[in-house]
Amino acid sequence: MSAPERPPGGASAKPSGGATKTLGLIAGGGELPRAVAQAARAEGREVFVVALVGSVTEDWVQDFPHKFLTPGEPGRIVKALKGAGARDVLLAGKVDRPKFSEMKLDAKGILLLPKAVAAAKKGDDALLRFIVGICEDEGFRAISVAEAAPALVADEGALGRIAPQEEHFADILQAFKIVHALGALDVGQAAAVCEGLALAVEAAEGTDAMLARIPGLRESLRGTAAKKRGVLVKALKPTQDAKTDMPVVGVQTVRNAAAAFLAGIALEAGAALILDKAAVAAEADRLGLFVTGIKQ
Amino acid sequence: MSAPERPPGGASAKPSGGATKTLGLIAGGGELPRAVAQAARAEGREVFVVALVGSVTEDWVQDFPHKFLTPGEPGRIVKALKGAGARDVLLAGKVDRPKFSEMKLDAKGILLLPKAVAAAKKGDDALLRFIVGICEDEGFRAISVAEAAPALVADEGALGRIAPQEEHFADILQAFKIVHALGALDVGQAAAVCEGLALAVEAAEGTDAMLARIPGLRESLRGTAAKKRGVLVKALKPTQDAKTDMPVVGVQTVRNAAAAFLAGIALEAGAALILDKAAVAAEADRLGLFVTGIKQ
Repeated sequence: MSAPERPPGGASAKPSGGATKTLGLIAGGGELPRAVAQAARAEGREVFVVALVGSVTEDWVQDFPHKFLTPGEPGRIVKALKGAGARDVLLAGKVDRPKFSEMKLDAKGILLLPKAVAAAKKGDDALLRFIVGICEDEGFRAISVAEAAPALVADEGALGRIAPQEEHFADILQAFKIVHALGALDVGQAAAVCEGLALAVEAAEGTDAMLARIPGLRESLRGTAAKKRGVLVKALKPTQDAKTDMPVVGVQTVRNAAAAFLAGIALEAGAALILDKAAVAAEADRLGLFVTGIKQ
Repeated sequence: MSAPERPPGGASAKPSGGATKTLGLIAGGGELPRAVAQAARAEGREVFVVALVGSVTEDWVQDFPHKFLTPGEPGRIVKALKGAGARDVLLAGKVDRPKFSEMKLDAKGILLLPKAVAAAKKGDDALLRFIVGICEDEGFRAISVAEAAPALVADEGALGRIAPQEEHFADILQAFKIVHALGALDVGQAAAVCEGLALAVEAAEGTDAMLARIPGLRESLRGTAAKKRGVLVKALKPTQDAKTDMPVVGVQTVRNAAAAFLAGIALEAGAALILDKAAVAAEADRLGLFVTGIKQ
């Protein structure tokens, strides 16, 4: 080790609490929260995880100091984050629209329940913003994934060796238009377009299920195993802020896009996340797809 | 028979060509063209059908004077319609985006091919408008389904005995917003919304396939067999004109909406078609759904 200012203690030594802010990660489901926690730790941060009951099913939280709580326990969430010395908080991952009637509530949760129910009715994003808002009211600083884990953010340009061709740009543009129009109504954040035709548009089913139905369309409308056609675009909803729900692409997304006979994936550079860039690039190269970041 | 001014000849007698304009029906796939042809005949019109090869698979056209032609034979389409004495034309039904390279073309088709290919790339609607446009250039009058078969048009208010409740109106409004936003981009004409959440949005898969995936969503998001929740809205795309592709609801749509655990179906009054109002009303009553026309 050649960093003389760091305290002794080998590879696991971390700067003390004063030097690096502890990240309070409120974790929902999916692969994103783990990727964020690991990337933030790799940047030298301490990470404390509030694992949302009913959303986190993975056991990765065992690798971090953590506490399981429901979205109906904002008082306990705030207390746990303060107890861990966190000042920055970040909510990452999918949060199922909760059934408040079946949920464990704390005193603050009961107090805020009418607002929470109203927020949940406006869509999943509204609920996420509501939970983050409670933390901000308590003096926490809500930060974005981009700030906590900059290594995950999509850059401009092709990620692997394959770049989109001229024939793909009109479809990329049209898919961005569709996602932005849908996003303004809090519908979804993905669309697939092939030669001007919207093959599929994401709502509550999610991107994977959306891609899975494309091979069921008439062959004249879509690509085939022999000839890949069309593009997948994932983009931030205009109603979302980057703190809560940036679109995410991982190795499985690349595999699903290939299985849907698409030619590639386009993301908004700076406003989308790639869970493991090296692995995604390798899989895209192997399957013959492009994965590219477009500056908006 | 008590109409002394009609010529003798029993029930099959029709006014002569001069008194009633012959309808030239360019027929695509699905149930709509047959319903239009039968409703127009019931109104006392002669009907001549141009059955589009590759789109019409039903044998109902045998009941009418008809000719099978491809969308690549506009010259022959025009000639057939003129030969039948039609002055009003109407294109009804789904037209698959054609593979021009595999299609039978006439001289006019070859001449117009570049424009047709460009129109097809802009979406199915653009192709339909293109075909109708050729007929208009030849002096035909393009009429709407509403004019040819007014009995099919959705009226304002509940069709059966069940009306939407207050809890449904916010979802109906949101679903109309989504369909209008999507329609402006030529994506689809249907959406299902449940308590503010977009359950599913139609693209190339069509309304039936869209409804079929709703039961696969998490139960907390949608209705159940015990409690129906959410609404289906079908509405005209702002890019469509009512002459080519009004949204259509039939008995099967009601059954599919019920199987998706939706509480009902809302249509734009005056701008949607119901294939058999009595049968749709009976099925909606039987399954406990509303089917309603909303004035926009």
